[in-house]
Amino acid sequence: MLIVQKFGGTSVGDLDRIANVAKRVSATKKEGNDVIVVVSAMSGETNKLVGYAENFSKNPSKAEMDMLLSSGERVTASLLSIALNEMGHKTVAMTGRKAGIITDDSHTKARIEEINPEVMRANIQEGRIIVVAGFQGVNYAGDITTLGRGGSDLSAVAIAGAIGADLCEIYTDVSGIYTTDPRIEPKAKKLDKISYDEMLELASLGAKVLQNRSVEMAKKLNVNLVTRTSFSNEEGTLITKEENIMEAPLVSGIALDRNQARISLIGVIDKPGIASDIFNRLAEAEVNIDVIIQNKAQDGTTNIDFTVPVAELNDAKSVVDAFVAKGDIKDDSYNENICKVSVVGVGMKSHAGVAARAFSTMAENNININMISTSEIKVSMVIDEKYAELAVRGLHATYELDK
Amino acid sequence: MLIVQKFGGTSVGDLDRIANVAKRVSATKKEGNDVIVVVSAMSGETNKLVGYAENFSKNPSKAEMDMLLSSGERVTASLLSIALNEMGHKTVAMTGRKAGIITDDSHTKARIEEINPEVMRANIQEGRIIVVAGFQGVNYAGDITTLGRGGSDLSAVAIAGAIGADLCEIYTDVSGIYTTDPRIEPKAKKLDKISYDEMLELASLGAKVLQNRSVEMAKKLNVNLVTRTSFSNEEGTLITKEENIMEAPLVSGIALDRNQARISLIGVIDKPGIASDIFNRLAEAEVNIDVIIQNKAQDGTTNIDFTVPVAELNDAKSVVDAFVAKGDIKDDSYNENICKVSVVGVGMKSHAGVAARAFSTMAENNININMISTSEIKVSMVIDEKYAELAVRGLHATYELDK
Repeated sequence: MLIVQKFGGTSVGDLDRIANVAKRVSATKKEGNDVIVVVSAMSGETNKLVGYAENFSKNPSKAEMDMLLSSGERVTASLLSIALNEMGHKTVAMTGRKAGIITDDSHTKARIEEINPEVMRANIQEGRIIVVAGFQGVNYAGDITTLGRGGSDLSAVAIAGAIGADLCEIYTDVSGIYTTDPRIEPKAKKLDKISYDEMLELASLGAKVLQNRSVEMAKKLNVNLVTRTSFSNEEGTLITKEENIMEAPLVSGIALDRNQARISLIGVIDKPGIASDIFNRLAEAEVNIDVIIQNKAQDGTTNIDFTVPVAELNDAKSVVDAFVAKGDIKDDSYNENICKVSVVGVGMKSHAGVAARAFSTMAENNININMISTSEIKVSMVIDEKYAELAVRGLHATYELDK
Repeated sequence: MLIVQKFGGTSVGDLDRIANVAKRVSATKKEGNDVIVVVSAMSGETNKLVGYAENFSKNPSKAEMDMLLSSGERVTASLLSIALNEMGHKTVAMTGRKAGIITDDSHTKARIEEINPEVMRANIQEGRIIVVAGFQGVNYAGDITTLGRGGSDLSAVAIAGAIGADLCEIYTDVSGIYTTDPRIEPKAKKLDKISYDEMLELASLGAKVLQNRSVEMAKKLNVNLVTRTSFSNEEGTLITKEENIMEAPLVSGIALDRNQARISLIGVIDKPGIASDIFNRLAEAEVNIDVIIQNKAQDGTTNIDFTVPVAELNDAKSVVDAFVAKGDIKDDSYNENICKVSVVGVGMKSHAGVAARAFSTMAENNININMISTSEIKVSMVIDEKYAELAVRGLHATYELDK
């Protein structure tokens, strides 16, 4: 097999951990596999460099930041290549440039445009283990770029897709994807397999093992992703296309997002285009809207409720206040003490009654549902934050996820 | 003027010092000059990375070492560019690759093959201060290389030569070139100007401000070099071609090299080619021979004395021992308690009696001269190490270098 293995910052956090990573990569190679390793900077390094830059400027040049920050991954890649070489393997360390990763010009948050895997392929054919500095590429002008948050995961997935790897293993300090947060429900079980779409719902809802952009790219390039821990030999969770999962369970997991706030617009005046005007302004302010509900009041005005990430609440308030000042909205209120509980599963596509059982579970536990939003593979409910754990444990039991 | 300024590891040793460097560069730019800055890694960084690599291998891959070590200079260059930008300057940080520095394939000790200054020139024309990561380039295959010891100085000199800079300033923690080591002779004076050839003699003899390869390149490319300190505004020493120095003094400086050992070969048998055989073997063992004297003994054999760097004494011994074992040499002896004192000055080309005054000075101080070696611009004497300071101070006074 051709396997891409990606190790994050804590997995390569110090020299001992890099040595452990080398042992794991070596074992994979000795089992007869070809291996491409993608590494992050040693944990703390990137923050240290960001701190250095902030010492000089609150708004440092992004091209300079890319040259600065890309150095951390290069250090780890060089060291791991040296360690593997010392263990008797033929190895080569590669920068993003050498690995053929071409991005657009958006310094510090570049998007991968293409990957030219010829140099990697030639080195694999010569029997080398390739160690790639993650998180980085070059634009068409040849300047160093970085890929933003989760960039090393993205490097790994994109390389796996471009070179046609059989597997892309993402090593973190978490052993895989669980049916729900084990800190809330100790009976949570690790999932063996999950579909890309389920993972996307679980990630956006709070299971922060993988950034959505990596899962989306894996889905697009049809890469078999595995998340597992570098601190034990425990098997991880395979994220793959739905067709590869025989007999998908009705529900795969329960996600909890405490990071939402609810905004209530009371008495929005009856004027054509007013709602779209409000939401366009919110979009311009880069506020991400999640659940929206709307209903007519008896006086002909409309009430609109929606949720936004807590971090974007102030930006949202500014937008709303302007409409209140103009008299387009009578009143507004805000509630940060909410959370969103979601039931996720591809199985619900072909089974009715999943949502109904969720609502029943809430009722049995005397939990009032404030807002509801559904998709083909999920049911989300906005409830008071104090009921978060109760709701998660109740739903986990309802769908028998501990079995 | 177009000025290249190079700042070494101690000059950019921490964030405060980088801020100081930024102020100096900014002032140079504001005086109406175009500026290209070349920086080393923050002091300690390179050693830290070397230590990391040695943790994994005693003999790490040199290509990997280059990828590893080149990161230190990139960090400094990015940070300095950010600092200068914050001060209102248009700036750009460049890697060795971006600066157009092309080297041969000798990883960790690459030689510069060519510099393509077009990208730098275009940025200068746009009014930008360019901050180049020193010590590094790329080979023709595009892989990162590093230039070995003194590599950042070499980057600066080569860039100054390629782009036709008016001046190349090398900033260190030393304020310039002195008539002799001020720790030995407190009356030592800083030289305003010195020729390339004198600097080469002084450097190889122990004044370690600049590596010879940088001075040699400056001479070849006709670059006006200035060494000065980044810790004050004190003027430094200009190293330039002899023609630029009006009325060169008879003697420019007294150099002391404590780092030599003397090897005496007693009774080398009278066989054609035996001496060349010995010295060829020493060359193969990469032993650098300095002073050599030879004289016939009364029994028809020859005595040969020569000096080598102390660090290469053991290698030299191995070579010599083989000849002793074969019977080609009767006996050998070694003396590490020697030193070499040298009088250097282009003025002596056109003045007789310089050497004679040196020998007289030794005699007046009852110092026995063991070996003598001369060139057009220097007189070197090997003496017992215990007389080192006495000899240096005596010669310094003889040639009135404190005046």
